[in-house]
Amino acid sequence: MILIGIDLGGTNIAVGAVDEEGRILAQASAKTLAQRPFTEIVRDMAGCVRRVMDALPGREFAGIGIGIPGIADESGTVLNCTNLGWFNEPLADEMHKYFDLPVYIGNDANVAALAECHVGAAKGCRSSVMITLGTGVGGGIVLDGRPWNGAHGRGGEIGHMTLVPDGVPCTCGNNGCVERYCSATALIRIGRQECRAFPDSLMLKKAGGDPEKISAKTVIDAAKEGDAPALRAFNSFVYYLALTINNLTASLDPEMIVLGGGVSHAGAFLLDAVRALLPRYQIFKALPIPKVELAQLGNEAGIIGAAMLGKR
Amino acid sequence: MILIGIDLGGTNIAVGAVDEEGRILAQASAKTLAQRPFTEIVRDMAGCVRRVMDALPGREFAGIGIGIPGIADESGTVLNCTNLGWFNEPLADEMHKYFDLPVYIGNDANVAALAECHVGAAKGCRSSVMITLGTGVGGGIVLDGRPWNGAHGRGGEIGHMTLVPDGVPCTCGNNGCVERYCSATALIRIGRQECRAFPDSLMLKKAGGDPEKISAKTVIDAAKEGDAPALRAFNSFVYYLALTINNLTASLDPEMIVLGGGVSHAGAFLLDAVRALLPRYQIFKALPIPKVELAQLGNEAGIIGAAMLGKR
Repeated sequence: MILIGIDLGGTNIAVGAVDEEGRILAQASAKTLAQRPFTEIVRDMAGCVRRVMDALPGREFAGIGIGIPGIADESGTVLNCTNLGWFNEPLADEMHKYFDLPVYIGNDANVAALAECHVGAAKGCRSSVMITLGTGVGGGIVLDGRPWNGAHGRGGEIGHMTLVPDGVPCTCGNNGCVERYCSATALIRIGRQECRAFPDSLMLKKAGGDPEKISAKTVIDAAKEGDAPALRAFNSFVYYLALTINNLTASLDPEMIVLGGGVSHAGAFLLDAVRALLPRYQIFKALPIPKVELAQLGNEAGIIGAAMLGKR
Repeated sequence: MILIGIDLGGTNIAVGAVDEEGRILAQASAKTLAQRPFTEIVRDMAGCVRRVMDALPGREFAGIGIGIPGIADESGTVLNCTNLGWFNEPLADEMHKYFDLPVYIGNDANVAALAECHVGAAKGCRSSVMITLGTGVGGGIVLDGRPWNGAHGRGGEIGHMTLVPDGVPCTCGNNGCVERYCSATALIRIGRQECRAFPDSLMLKKAGGDPEKISAKTVIDAAKEGDAPALRAFNSFVYYLALTINNLTASLDPEMIVLGGGVSHAGAFLLDAVRALLPRYQIFKALPIPKVELAQLGNEAGIIGAAMLGKR
């Protein structure tokens, strides 16, 4: 069985034909040019799908899955996709004008989580939550092998769980959201704070003396080298991440937590620190500690997970 | 179809025969006498089941569901039930010695949530979370009409999500757990704090001048009468409850939140306050606000929900 996966981003449309093991057999891509009319963007998506299908002559395709940076309802209408300016656009219906195949639509973070659950870090798990540690914090929930979007489409918005009541103001309008404490942005904010208090920090040296040039990688690299201010910033990040994982465990209790996004490139340095802190915050300490792993699929998770939306 | 529901508590065993609409057709009960051997307690549970069956001659029974104050695995072994001192007790197997019927075991909080979802406040909802506001804070999650226990049995332990990092120490060993901020215990603690600062509070009058006699009901009654210190205690409770509901919405996004437990007897006074505060903390404000309702089934939820474990 071959499934088509479409990773629809604000910049690129990436399409792949994916087999059941999550291997991408053929790919095509186009620019999104997001300011264009909805129907034109879908036409180019369909064009990429056609090219991918043509690259695999004689093969049958079971369905088309689309990962969008937004929210869709069960009928396949995109309710809200700010990056593309789409509100209530009938994406599945429009796609059906080109292909007589089932069309499945999911949120991009949920789709990445689905890919990791089917063929990546959480392969073999019945339930998993992926936490994407990037500029913000995204999340995707997979339960019984299916993405869980929630009743209103807010499911998996882990970055906007409140972690610190009356805490740091968030772009969403609330205060103290998870993504204000364990995103790349948070790592940079706390790293810069440390540099103001400790100007001899290695972070500042790595940034050529300019605190504005401190990136998440600067903080992590300096922490790896044992710089105390950088380690405090990193440990703050890890502490809040461990609390967030505890909150997911005490509510959903997934089989595995998968860490993705830019900060996850810190690799074992991050993973070991998180794993070491988790047991302290788990209730029912006699029960197994939830497994935590790094995401494995990288950018291809978008295509693979979109395809997996159609896996039955 | 008739199902048997057993509400196994530390004090009482309550058994009922329940029809598909959640009506209890016959009941029996016995003392738990929790210090007895496991097999004796199960023998008395089976005796109650027999009496209930005998009260409905000629009827067929489809299964036996048991709600326990602890955690069981999928094979029907009770892993951990502190109140009864049960650890790794084969409850389903022991029950099968008396009845040739399927046996289903669930956590009591999840079972109550299941009852509310099938025939109570959340009837007709595909997903709901029940928050039990008592001495502690319990929780039960129902997804697609089935209880969600999580991969390790920690699912639904909403009371031990961290709400305030480094906050009030909790009985579980962590700090700042939800149940330290929105339980009856929290209402009492904050009420007493207010009374120390404002000794002319109506709460203190109602408690005969003795702060140790302030109960959750004292705080709520005084708040209803407009006493400012009591209102501050009540509003603190409602604020933290709204944050907790936001955290459940941003992760699980259930169709409905059901409020149960002693504090929920504050009724519309509580419900109106929570509903008024929720919109402020929801992300994606264009999406519908999650519904919040009061639990409807009271003590019978234990029997009804246990029976519903067997509903297929």
